Amino acid sequence: MATISRLQNPEENPRVKSVFDDIRATRGSDFINNLWNYLAFNPDLLEKTWRDVKEVMAKPSYLDPMTKELIYTAVSISNSCEYCIHSHTAAARAYGMTDEQYAEFLSIVSLAGRTNNLLNGIKVPVDKEFDHDKIKND
Amino acid sequence: MATISRLQNPEENPRVKSVFDDIRATRGSDFINNLWNYLAFNPDLLEKTWRDVKEVMAKPSYLDPMTKELIYTAVSISNSCEYCIHSHTAAARAYGMTDEQYAEFLSIVSLAGRTNNLLNGIKVPVDKEFDHDKIKND
Amino acid sequence: MATISRLQNPEENPRVKSVFDDIRATRGSDFINNLWNYLAFNPDLLEKTWRDVKEVMAKPSYLDPMTKELIYTAVSISNSCEYCIHSHTAAARAYGMTDEQYAEFLSIVSLAGRTNNLLNGIKVPVDKEFDHDKIKND
Amino acid sequence: MATISRLQNPEENPRVKSVFDDIRATRGSDFINNLWNYLAFNPDLLEKTWRDVKEVMAKPSYLDPMTKELIYTAVSISNSCEYCIHSHTAAARAYGMTDEQYAEFLSIVSLAGRTNNLLNGIKVPVDKEFDHDKIKND
Amino acid sequence: MATISRLQNPEENPRVKSVFDDIRATRGSDFINNLWNYLAFNPDLLEKTWRDVKEVMAKPSYLDPMTKELIYTAVSISNSCEYCIHSHTAAARAYGMTDEQYAEFLSIVSLAGRTNNLLNGIKVPVDKEFDHDKIKND
Amino acid sequence: MATISRLQNPEENPRVKSVFDDIRATRGSDFINNLWNYLAFNPDLLEKTWRDVKEVMAKPSYLDPMTKELIYTAVSISNSCEYCIHSHTAAARAYGMTDEQYAEFLSIVSLAGRTNNLLNGIKVPVDKEFDHDKIKND
Repeated sequence: MATISRLQNPEENPRVKSVFDDIRATRGSDFINNLWNYLAFNPDLLEKTWRDVKEVMAKPSYLDPMTKELIYTAVSISNSCEYCIHSHTAAARAYGMTDEQYAEFLSIVSLAGRTNNLLNGIKVPVDKEFDHDKIKND
Repeated sequence: MATISRLQNPEENPRVKSVFDDIRATRGSDFINNLWNYLAFNPDLLEKTWRDVKEVMAKPSYLDPMTKELIYTAVSISNSCEYCIHSHTAAARAYGMTDEQYAEFLSIVSLAGRTNNLLNGIKVPVDKEFDHDKIKND
Repeated sequence: MATISRLQNPEENPRVKSVFDDIRATRGSDFINNLWNYLAFNPDLLEKTWRDVKEVMAKPSYLDPMTKELIYTAVSISNSCEYCIHSHTAAARAYGMTDEQYAEFLSIVSLAGRTNNLLNGIKVPVDKEFDHDKIKND
Repeated sequence: MATISRLQNPEENPRVKSVFDDIRATRGSDFINNLWNYLAFNPDLLEKTWRDVKEVMAKPSYLDPMTKELIYTAVSISNSCEYCIHSHTAAARAYGMTDEQYAEFLSIVSLAGRTNNLLNGIKVPVDKEFDHDKIKND
Repeated sequence: MATISRLQNPEENPRVKSVFDDIRATRGSDFINNLWNYLAFNPDLLEKTWRDVKEVMAKPSYLDPMTKELIYTAVSISNSCEYCIHSHTAAARAYGMTDEQYAEFLSIVSLAGRTNNLLNGIKVPVDKEFDHDKIKND
Repeated sequence: MATISRLQNPEENPRVKSVFDDIRATRGSDFINNLWNYLAFNPDLLEKTWRDVKEVMAKPSYLDPMTKELIYTAVSISNSCEYCIHSHTAAARAYGMTDEQYAEFLSIVSLAGRTNNLLNGIKVPVDKEFDHDKIKND
């Protein structure tokens, strides 16, 4: 059940076809996952979403691809985004994540959920030693 | 402002002193951050929290230390835990995170926040291709 | 799957029937959606929930009805309430929301998710210029 | 820093004075906490918020008062509502919460944060045994 | 749909069998719910998760068992953890929760969600009277 | 306290100056709020964030400017982003939001927080009538 209706043949629209072609070329795969098929209801939203995902996730950068997917998945778990959890866990596996790494990832995400609640409950004051801002605001 | 009162001399309690000594030894530093000082109000809670943090974060494992801190920070940002954001961003820097890596980390965390809302808004059905469970429940 | 069991014939209870009649009259429709059928397990909870929804959403006010539904949906997306997302997106459409407006709504909700994480990550100090409180607390 | 300006003399408005008088009488105390002083900017919002808080929290009921405050605080921690965390933790103490109970409360809230992330990460299917709904939807 | 594949015969692994035996003994029931079956993919994660759940939830303590399950469920609702909501609501019922108590629990959880948003919207400053920390940080 | 250090003279970098000039021109104001000053630590992140904010918020579109700011603020409240709450509430006022409209906005955001928890607690099944997707997935 979705809040928009997927188009029967989204690639009849040339703007949609152009984005789908770029997704296929960038990923080296013919598979277009549901996200893009649904976003096709609005070519502008589709284009901008793909542009941003490509900019951040699909180019050489300062963090390795598996780490990037794990960070993405961590946020998605916290936000309870079922689709994102599935798609980015799958992507992390595609980049070589082992079962041991996944178990460790789950341990960290769980531990953070635990201490987040503990510290937000107590409202522990932040140590001055953690401050990174050199210029003081008044 | 906190919901418990920090003890004046927490290490007068030998159980607290024993945990603090282990924190100092494990980290190779004399600095005891506020979290542990506040948790000292209840030695049982202090001991179990440190045991779990040490088990997950402070031993050789399948993910590198900086990646682990980034995953921790990602969850903390989503949960809006101010203390955890500061302490684990500082830890990631201590493990060598550069400004470029931090900017990229922020891009990923932000992008995830964006697409999480987009997909939770549309409620895009999850592709069967992402299913990792071989045994089907009925 | 739900945590309470829907009653077979909720309107046998006169308090439930009275609420359902008011829902039908207020909305000019015979359709009673699941929320109310489930809440009927406790007439007190049913009555107060409907009273509050009616007070806020179903009377002439300072914001137009479609805007109100979009604000409601935005919160529901952030809280990952699947039922609320579906029912209030449908309500926004019933008040005339076009596909272009919905795409723009999704852009805003997504952008907010993005910058929320960015700013919560950096913990940017709030500008004094945004303070609206004239009386200073000490 | 707040998004509205507190009134200098809120009780000059008789509707505000009437709510404040009822708060004082219900609680048997002269202390009016900031929440009500700020809500006074809109007497309608003030009246309805107090009515609802009073209905749920300030009358004899099926759960004891300290338990109710702990449930309230648990939600407030998850939502990172600093004000609510402080006011409802203080209320739980006022109802007799001991340090041992508070430490246990923090353990539960933390454990839930941990397993919530673990299960949302794995997306474990819900056991049929937990279903409480006798009437099946199709 | 899950992000890991449940093992066909998890108890072939003696570490898994040992945990499952302890779960059965602790609960006095043969039923092993899905959470543990899925966690069996990594005996270390399984052992530590069960150890922590048992420590917090399954031993005599300062809060009664039903209250503990309600606190757990409150957090799980806020985090939108479907599995946890179902399992801990079922546990609260198993400890004797009545329909009236459940309706009241839902009222409190709902009211907290309401005032959390209200106060986070206004950013009401926290009253000094709520501060519990005797030692002032500077 | 922030996780990055604000630059003393960010506009010495021509890429930063170019973004700041565009912010000033787009808004018709010399005021550069802290968000942009902090993002200047990484010109790439600064440029892309401003590009996206400008695309969504600062051009003629299908929703009126005040409505857009209210949707933005609603998400920010749910995510507990203090900076975003202040900046976008201020923006809504700048677009003409009255105190009555703000009080109503707060009522809606609060009501949504309430029913989100209620429905996520009960896990009410979504009515088929709300489905907008014409193409069925299997």
